[in-house]
Order: sequence, then C-alpha cells, then structure tokens
Amino acid sequence: MFKHEINIRVRYGETDQMGFVYYGNYALYYEVARVEALRSLGCSYQQLEQSGIFMPVSTLNIKFLLPARYDEELLVTTRIAELPTSRITFLYEIYGATGVLLNEAETSLAFISATTHKPIRVPNNLFLALKPFF
Amino acid sequence: MFKHEINIRVRYGETDQMGFVYYGNYALYYEVARVEALRSLGCSYQQLEQSGIFMPVSTLNIKFLLPARYDEELLVTTRIAELPTSRITFLYEIYGATGVLLNEAETSLAFISATTHKPIRVPNNLFLALKPFF
Amino acid sequence: MFKHEINIRVRYGETDQMGFVYYGNYALYYEVARVEALRSLGCSYQQLEQSGIFMPVSTLNIKFLLPARYDEELLVTTRIAELPTSRITFLYEIYGATGVLLNEAETSLAFISATTHKPIRVPNNLFLALKPFF
Amino acid sequence: MFKHEINIRVRYGETDQMGFVYYGNYALYYEVARVEALRSLGCSYQQLEQSGIFMPVSTLNIKFLLPARYDEELLVTTRIAELPTSRITFLYEIYGATGVLLNEAETSLAFISATTHKPIRVPNNLFLALKPFF
Repeated sequence: MFKHEINIRVRYGETDQMGFVYYGNYALYYEVARVEALRSLGCSYQQLEQSGIFMPVSTLNIKFLLPARYDEELLVTTRIAELPTSRITFLYEIYGATGVLLNEAETSLAFISATTHKPIRVPNNLFLALKPFF
Repeated sequence: MFKHEINIRVRYGETDQMGFVYYGNYALYYEVARVEALRSLGCSYQQLEQSGIFMPVSTLNIKFLLPARYDEELLVTTRIAELPTSRITFLYEIYGATGVLLNEAETSLAFISATTHKPIRVPNNLFLALKPFF
Repeated sequence: MFKHEINIRVRYGETDQMGFVYYGNYALYYEVARVEALRSLGCSYQQLEQSGIFMPVSTLNIKFLLPARYDEELLVTTRIAELPTSRITFLYEIYGATGVLLNEAETSLAFISATTHKPIRVPNNLFLALKPFF
Repeated sequence: MFKHEINIRVRYGETDQMGFVYYGNYALYYEVARVEALRSLGCSYQQLEQSGIFMPVSTLNIKFLLPARYDEELLVTTRIAELPTSRITFLYEIYGATGVLLNEAETSLAFISATTHKPIRVPNNLFLALKPFF
C-alpha cells in the first residue's frame, strides 16, 4: 500500500452560508491530495498530460461525517491500495484541526489517450514507482 | 416515486483544461436540481433554512460515464425513491445535448437543527408534499 | 449602444460563510451574461472558439454596493457601449430581487488566435451584428 | 508600506478549457494572499469574524497581462500602501514560475459589524500592527 499526507487550509471562498466547506469543494482537496501523492512518487500530472495522457475521474464517493470550517488546516491522507492497471483508485481521509475524521472518499480515475480519448494502460513510470509498495 | 427535470447550461468557468466540466462542479448541478425539485413541491430550501433547518449532504456518489462540455444544455433528472424520515436521498441523471447519459449520482442529506446541529425529522410540509407520490 | 438582460439565480455553492455571494463568483455571472448577450446577437462563443478565436479577459473592475443572497433571482444587464476593434468591453449591472442595484462591473476582452495566442481583430460576424446598434 | 509574499500552486479545477486559470478564480488567490498577509501581522481574519467584524470586498480591479497555467507555482505579493481607516486597500501582483508578472490587482474592503452590517473603524489591533510600517 502507498500512503501520502498533505495539509490544506480552507479558503473563505470554499465555504458556504451554512458556515462550512461546500460539499462540492472537497473534490478540489482530493485533487490536490492525489496530485501531490503522485508528485511524491516522481510523477507530475502536468507532465503526464503533456505526454498525451489524461486521467479523468470515473467515480467519486464521499461520506461526510463532520464539516470542515473556514481557515481550518486540514490533514488529507491519500492511499493507493492496489497496483493500477487501466485505472487507479485513491482513498482519502480528511482530518480536521483537532485530529477528528471529517470525511472519507474514494476516486477511481481512468488512463486515456489525450488525442483519441480511448483507455490506455497505466504509464510505465507510475507503475514502476508504485510497485515497491505492494 | 417523485421525479423532476431541469435544464442547466454549462458555464465556461465550470470547465477545466481537459475541455470538460471539472468533476467537482457537478455537485453544483445536483444542488440546483434538488433545490428546484423541492421548489416544485412547494418547498423552498431558503425558507427551510430561515425556519431553522439545515440540510447538509452526508453522502455523495457519482459515476461518470461521459464528459459534459462547455455551453452544453444538460438535462438533469432528480428522483426521490423513498419517503424521507431523518434523511432524504436524491438520485440524479445528467443527459447531454444529444440525449446520452453522462453521469448518475446519489446524494443523501440529513435534516439538522440550524442552531444545535442535531438531527431532526423531515419537516412536515415536505413530508406531506411527497406523500402522494408513494 | 447594445443592451441585453438575463436572470440568474444564486446557487448555494456560490455563497460564503458571510451569507452572501462570494466576491469572486460574480465573475461567473458576468461570463454568463456576456455569453448570452453575444448569443442574442447570433454569435456563439463556443463556435467562436471552435473557429480558432479565444477571448481572454484583460481587465475586470467591480464595484460592490450591496450583497446578493442565496436563491435570489438576479437581473444582470450587459451593455456594449463601443464598437469593438481588437478588444470588446462589456458593462454590467446586477440588480437584486427587489430591483436595487447590487454591483456594477466592466470587463475588457481581447480577441486572440487560439493557436498563436496573438491579438486579432474582432470577428466580422460579431462586428456586423453590432454595427446597427451604433 | 507593508509587503507580504506567498506561493500558491494552481489547482486543476481552477483552470478552464482555454488551458489557463479562469479569470474569476484569481479572486481566491488574492483572498489567500491578504488573509496570510493579515496573519503575518498577528491578525487572524477568522478571529476577526468571530469577534463580530466582517470585511466584505467593496472594489476589485484586475489587470490581466499573461495567463497562469495548471500546476504553476505562483508568487503573490500583497502590499498595503496606506494605513486603513474605515476601509483597507490591498495591492497584489502575481508572478509566474519564470518570474514574469502575470497580473496586478487591487481590492478595497470595508470593516462592518457582523450583526448590524454598518461600517465601523479598522480594529485597533490591526491598526497598531500596521502603524510601524508607515
């Protein structure tokens, strides 16, 4: 299993009038978390795109337990529990400033060709970077 | 079962550099869809909040099949398949301009007191408005 | 002068914890307003892009007078006060549900080639559609 | 004059299909920049709100020179050029990864009471923290 952690501070524009982070904005946090997880593996998503590979999200599942608040420094953990093949699944947990679990989520992303939009296999450098963790 | 339909046009700011709607922005479309579904039942979410009831989202599950594009006029269908008790579940389908299914999603929302943040039962006017559909 | 009007309803995700629309989200309303203004002139921005023309925003100036609130049906007026040449300027006013002016803004957009990113002149069909108003 | 610097990395969801940061999303960067500028002065905006003071934006002016791109690590400089009284003005410059100026902006914010929404004077602790810089 591969695991990564990152801190993200809640922006004012990410809250809504309920006084919490708007439920759709967690998608941005998961995005940042998985991109930084990939970067820590030596794999830049920007370079992946420039080499002709898109990674669209195919499923997003979130279970909200407690709300995140403005200015809170969140801890986002990202796990990859299986070696990717034609898709890759990320598991996230977001913890609030007091260490309590706020929500957990899962995203599954496909690897597709930027030109044909057809599915392709996991890029070799990413596969090789992840292999030692399994 | 209760069913509602609404059209939503994709804004430029909702796309990302892949050329499609950013995966987190569909949450806004589901929000608009369920709020208009409730309004069609005579139930304004704004008035609900003003009467002291919040409806935070407790689960969000999305299955993305095909991307939505800029300026596309989407059809969003919203279904309520069960009479709500202490929570309410909405099922969504988003169809593209050509009528093809782009994604399907489900959100479960709790009813809570705006002051105590404790769970409460479905407001009576919403329950009564939905009852004839079941 | 050319003038156009459109109604936009405030989404929950566009508010912030102050209970008003987040100041950055008005940019989306101005975008929708100018795109619909262009459409009413027979000019689709999506088609413009597909024909190789981008219209990046070069200046944005907003004067906020009063806040917009959740679920409020706003009236957005868009004016083009001068025939465009290598740029086009849109003037906006947003009115709240009670008819009071909430804010006024101005955006200037350049016409550039989608491939070279070099400035180009206003597309002929847009120029011809606007000419009768001046 | 008071000056502050911060780095912000562009998120995927902040880009649009032109391949650049959407023009409305810079408002989020300016927000983060001024909040961190205030924090560096010992003044938490969150605590300010909790003590009953809102700081709504009254003007936003942006001059876009060059676009910011996905994953780019931006440098945002924030300056306060005048001691605040009933409002405070922040001047921003955003520089791209290569050090080139991408845009410059100015926001003016009012101090208002969170309960009455009436204008108030700059909070004393902020005034005292800024005074030595002028």
